[in-house]
Amino acid sequence: MTGRTTIAEIARTAAVSVSTVSKVLNGHTDVAEDTRRRVQRLLDERGYRRRRAAHHQRSGDLLDLVINDLDTPWGLALLTGIEEVVESAGIGLVISAVHSRAALTRRWLESLLARGSQGAILVLSDLDDAQREQLRRHGTPIVVIDGVSQPPPDVPSVGATNFSGAYSATEHLLQLGHRRIAVIGGPEQLACTRARIAGYRAAFDAADLVAPRGLLRYGNFYHDGGFRAARSLLEDDDPPTAIFAGSDMHAMGVYEAARKSGRTVPDDLSVVGFDDLNFASWTAPGLTTVRQPLHEMGATAARTLLRLVAGEALDSTSIELATSLVVRDSTAVPSGT
Amino acid sequence: MTGRTTIAEIARTAAVSVSTVSKVLNGHTDVAEDTRRRVQRLLDERGYRRRRAAHHQRSGDLLDLVINDLDTPWGLALLTGIEEVVESAGIGLVISAVHSRAALTRRWLESLLARGSQGAILVLSDLDDAQREQLRRHGTPIVVIDGVSQPPPDVPSVGATNFSGAYSATEHLLQLGHRRIAVIGGPEQLACTRARIAGYRAAFDAADLVAPRGLLRYGNFYHDGGFRAARSLLEDDDPPTAIFAGSDMHAMGVYEAARKSGRTVPDDLSVVGFDDLNFASWTAPGLTTVRQPLHEMGATAARTLLRLVAGEALDSTSIELATSLVVRDSTAVPSGT
Repeated sequence: MTGRTTIAEIARTAAVSVSTVSKVLNGHTDVAEDTRRRVQRLLDERGYRRRRAAHHQRSGDLLDLVINDLDTPWGLALLTGIEEVVESAGIGLVISAVHSRAALTRRWLESLLARGSQGAILVLSDLDDAQREQLRRHGTPIVVIDGVSQPPPDVPSVGATNFSGAYSATEHLLQLGHRRIAVIGGPEQLACTRARIAGYRAAFDAADLVAPRGLLRYGNFYHDGGFRAARSLLEDDDPPTAIFAGSDMHAMGVYEAARKSGRTVPDDLSVVGFDDLNFASWTAPGLTTVRQPLHEMGATAARTLLRLVAGEALDSTSIELATSLVVRDSTAVPSGT
Repeated sequence: MTGRTTIAEIARTAAVSVSTVSKVLNGHTDVAEDTRRRVQRLLDERGYRRRRAAHHQRSGDLLDLVINDLDTPWGLALLTGIEEVVESAGIGLVISAVHSRAALTRRWLESLLARGSQGAILVLSDLDDAQREQLRRHGTPIVVIDGVSQPPPDVPSVGATNFSGAYSATEHLLQLGHRRIAVIGGPEQLACTRARIAGYRAAFDAADLVAPRGLLRYGNFYHDGGFRAARSLLEDDDPPTAIFAGSDMHAMGVYEAARKSGRTVPDDLSVVGFDDLNFASWTAPGLTTVRQPLHEMGATAARTLLRLVAGEALDSTSIELATSLVVRDSTAVPSGT
């Protein structure tokens, strides 16, 4: 179109995709060495010049957000809080999803350093020690939100009071008279899952009761995980009268399993969620849930990162924001009492 | 901490916020001139050096995504498609929410140029002619997804077949025997709203019927907009027997309005959504809806933008991906027939 060599022409001649040429241009390492050489030779021969001209000079600051999966409503709620703070500081927010894949995490780290991002927020994704050390060497601070594992004490983290949230959810069910209370956690290895299950147990302890055996399941925080866990719980010979579902999405799966087994919520089964996502208030019946201040957690993480980028000291490396129980219509006294 | 002057110290001395100092450093213009001078003088006096050292040199390419609001499930579905394509091309994706505010759009445009982003995808947000011209001068291509207004013919756009999606939704209700079919559009000024309402009318025309008067409402695509519109429709002396809700979130509001008026879906009221978001399959009853291939629309927009960045010509500047009707359990023959 312009008489100049384009990436598309280089790609056609080299019989590779446009994105492969783009990767070679950007110095990414996940291109086979012989491909990289062939493309580079063509770029040199044809005198390819990058479109970025003088006016494309970089000057705006960037921060990175890396998250396992973007298609979760809780990730979205965090994102809105992060974006608001970062945007109002006049900084660009680069987002990446790594889908729990180590190769994608490595590539993200490489890109982060290439673009000179000044810091990063990690949501439910984890770096190994070598990667954290690499960032430290580059002077790139990170803040972790609800990490997969408990981050090392020197890595600043923002979370919610998972333990006390689960405690108050369970206490609410105990006070209604439930004893056969089941709990569905998220993935077993997550720090937040462990904290929530510990809170569930602690509420039984505090009431001088023993948490029932056989009523613990692990899910994935999504609808299907809650559905599967609830179906298995409701098929039990001595099924629970209440389920603390561990997430609002899980709770919707529990609702569906209840319907399919002919049960009515809350008459036959009480359900408590965790998160308080938008649909919790307009589902039928309205969901009793533990509100997690996700937007505020995102904003806090962003503000913490900006302080680190600015070279400020933190008062505390680990911040837990308060959860609160929101009682709606999905919990009631157990039937027959 | 390091003996060097930090942004935080400059901010304290100048009695301004850290983000103001950051804006001055990044050349943003939304800082009062005298403040800018005071901060700049301090930066010079104290010999502030940016943390970005040699290893922070920018090399990675960037693309921008600008969206009105991040807290919508359909925006999220688009985002996952965009991120996937951009990431696999080894490029960073910068996201910004402008909340339909002209000042934020101006600031975003300024930041985009400052960071040398190579192109931008706009979701439901609009630029004026001068802004589009500014991007053209900088050689920064844009692709629009479901723009607020019909974009000029030379601006590439990606959308869904809103007209034919609404047509098939209405046709489905007509075939079930409904005649009092209401329609809830999104905001009145949106191009996608107009196309959906036109499709609704065209289905009546094709069946040699006249669309009923007084059964058109406008919403906001969110739950509360659907709820308010449905409540007003159901209070009508001759209420509709079916509502084409215009979005899945609207449809959830319609469900709630139906419940509150003592109606059962679908026995007393049929409901059709638009989008096919994840909850459409697990709500009770399962929602009949028009599936919009949001992930694929995002991916197509990203691929289109990458072609423009690479200097390729497009076969067509406007792409509409096909919608399809997904029939579940929220539609039935009208009661009394």
